[in-house]
Amino acid sequence: MTTHVQPVLEIAGEHVGRLLLRTETLLEEIASGHGLALGQHASSTLAAGGKRLRPVLVFVCAGGAESMNLVRAGAAVELLHMATLVHDDVLDRAPMRRGRPTVFWTSGRDAATATGDFLFSRAFAQLAATGSAAAVKALSDASSSLARGELMQRDDAFALDVTEERYFERCTLKTGKLFEAACRLGAVLGDPGDESADAIGRFGDRIGLAFQLFDDVLDLSGPPDQTGKSRGTDLLDGTVTLPIVYAREEDPSLRDERPQTASEAEALCDRIAATSALERSRERAKEFVAEAKNILSTLSLADNQRAALNLVADGVVERYS
Amino acid sequence: MTTHVQPVLEIAGEHVGRLLLRTETLLEEIASGHGLALGQHASSTLAAGGKRLRPVLVFVCAGGAESMNLVRAGAAVELLHMATLVHDDVLDRAPMRRGRPTVFWTSGRDAATATGDFLFSRAFAQLAATGSAAAVKALSDASSSLARGELMQRDDAFALDVTEERYFERCTLKTGKLFEAACRLGAVLGDPGDESADAIGRFGDRIGLAFQLFDDVLDLSGPPDQTGKSRGTDLLDGTVTLPIVYAREEDPSLRDERPQTASEAEALCDRIAATSALERSRERAKEFVAEAKNILSTLSLADNQRAALNLVADGVVERYS
Repeated sequence: MTTHVQPVLEIAGEHVGRLLLRTETLLEEIASGHGLALGQHASSTLAAGGKRLRPVLVFVCAGGAESMNLVRAGAAVELLHMATLVHDDVLDRAPMRRGRPTVFWTSGRDAATATGDFLFSRAFAQLAATGSAAAVKALSDASSSLARGELMQRDDAFALDVTEERYFERCTLKTGKLFEAACRLGAVLGDPGDESADAIGRFGDRIGLAFQLFDDVLDLSGPPDQTGKSRGTDLLDGTVTLPIVYAREEDPSLRDERPQTASEAEALCDRIAATSALERSRERAKEFVAEAKNILSTLSLADNQRAALNLVADGVVERYS
Repeated sequence: MTTHVQPVLEIAGEHVGRLLLRTETLLEEIASGHGLALGQHASSTLAAGGKRLRPVLVFVCAGGAESMNLVRAGAAVELLHMATLVHDDVLDRAPMRRGRPTVFWTSGRDAATATGDFLFSRAFAQLAATGSAAAVKALSDASSSLARGELMQRDDAFALDVTEERYFERCTLKTGKLFEAACRLGAVLGDPGDESADAIGRFGDRIGLAFQLFDDVLDLSGPPDQTGKSRGTDLLDGTVTLPIVYAREEDPSLRDERPQTASEAEALCDRIAATSALERSRERAKEFVAEAKNILSTLSLADNQRAALNLVADGVVERYS
């Protein structure tokens, strides 16, 4: 996605770039203003960066609007996203993320759990400052869904009976809802207003599903020098993704495999790649993108906003292609 | 405190009892409405009960007001309190709380972390539904403070240089701020209104400090059949509380003690009880209660509301006495 943010900014208008810069400044202030130790953990988490895709969605969905409330909303969705990553790293005992050591690894389970809780609460503090109850509701609903999705993923670990339907339910909870919330926040706090929030939210949900599905394909296909992690981490964690479901349907012998090492996982990735599972999953992701674009076509949007959102949609599946 | 809730309800008026019942119903709905596994974890956490002291503070500080928004605020402070307990149990690897097995113990680290995150997010969802940005801000500030306090406590574990000042800073973050938020929510959403919120909030902060300090004395003094836990858990965890600070001042040989077993902790409790540390700490707690009552005397309150809040203040230090 990184390579696709720049063209989105160029089309969406200069104000989106300004909003993103202000969001970075606000995130730095939040991290540095609450005590030394916590500030260090929070700063390193936020500085690890990432694509800031969710704030971009907030701003592009807000149309031409440019306000402090939008900056707060952009920071809020990023803070919530970061909070879940920090907690996930604790649960996964993950040493690295995005090429940097995790808070869990440098400072331990306790510090990482507290840092995640802190980032959570600061997300809501930012939205409280907008004065919009609809905005707080959007984020709290997404946050509850994230927790439910996390639990579902762990309940389903190594399960042999995960269906396509259950996979998508989990993706909706873990990814779709926060993308939906980002788009909804842009609508509610920006030009489109409350009455467009549901439809713009549905666009976000579809983009989120496509994003997650493509991410799950990349986990199996790599290449590692572009994804930043070895292939098959989902296989090692027991996270049953759609390409794994598809591959098992086509080659039932794959059901018996439970790799224990990175090289065993890589070998299993090769066997999955020998089926049509990756290609079928990519096609399914593209269907979500098409649905998202269909939703866009029903909305009353400025030309440049529509073009920018179409570009975001395309960008989700064009990574590393 | 349990024994003191009933007289508070009798003085504060029947509406407080009704608000508490509605809060229980709402908490049950929240726990049961979000998927089976999560619902079970959340239900067992909420059913484990406790004193519901924070909701009582919300309602009594609201004066004669009785509304769904107050019920939501009561549920929100309890949900946030529960969320932190669930996460604390993960960090402490605690098997039991309030005589029941913890979510961590029955369902594991992952489920407990997700359950805590879920309870957090539902707290904010309840306040979002009130439409009051001041209410959301009160809770998000308290929530950030809780995370900071948690981190501070773990940073200071087994430290020999914890001062009285640092201890009170930690108590403010870990306990005072949520008590303050409860009182503030009552004011903002009830009869007193925004202009009384700061003063009523300061009352809550003082009560919270007294409550925490007395809790810390009880950890050392027991008796276990009333506190529900063996004496000296803080000594085993390395949590340096004020009575420990005082005892070390009086008997420097205590600085070298680091008990490893429950019986070593009990023996150390006896040595601490031989100093004046417990009595000095109780006196300090009573000073906070006196400060709280002083703040009350400056507020314009109905007679029964004032009497009820005075009773809450007295109840904090009268447990097991």
